Amino acid sequence: MGEFKHLCAARFKEGVVVDDIIRELTKLAVELDAVKFFGWGENMLDQEALTRGFTHVFVLTFAIAEDLAACLGHGKHCAFGATFMAAVDDAVVMDFPLVFVKPALPPC
Amino acid sequence: MGEFKHLCAARFKEGVVVDDIIRELTKLAVELDAVKFFGWGENMLDQEALTRGFTHVFVLTFAIAEDLAACLGHGKHCAFGATFMAAVDDAVVMDFPLVFVKPALPPC
Repeated sequence: MGEFKHLCAARFKEGVVVDDIIRELTKLAVELDAVKFFGWGENMLDQEALTRGFTHVFVLTFAIAEDLAACLGHGKHCAFGATFMAAVDDAVVMDFPLVFVKPALPPC
Repeated sequence: MGEFKHLCAARFKEGVVVDDIIRELTKLAVELDAVKFFGWGENMLDQEALTRGFTHVFVLTFAIAEDLAACLGHGKHCAFGATFMAAVDDAVVMDFPLVFVKPALPPC
């Protein structure tokens, strides 16, 4: 099975409660069967020249690109997407099939 | 077991052969025991307002933050790091412990 990733690095506007965003995203990820994995992280690298001020990373995994497309077109995602984009001060989003190098196969 | 991620989104200078960069990074990841996972992806999202022109994502996984720090201080990484930074036109780097939400545990 391949893995298609939807990755977002973000910095939030002042006053935004990131825990609320994570709670909403969690609810959405749990509800949508096509989401195989959802995880997030808070940046710990203390070099703004490298992080560009991004503070959080969100990662969603789908089996195939079409599953992501279907989720993005889903009413629930659209509502959350607007909330999310209104909350971020800056964001980078990338979609890509993950190539496994080490190990050469996805985890079981 | 937790997972500590070292993530880099990059866009390369004109003329850079990205396959060469991936080959060197693969060699490094295979040599360094502390690297539990190395994968990469080429962006497929066709919205520059979101991708900011970044074309590739590289992900390295370590058991703990200290393992990443040890690798970054490793002579082989330092040599490659200079090569990599000279090849990129722009990059964002973030280090973070990954919080597993769905599923709530790392893969076996």
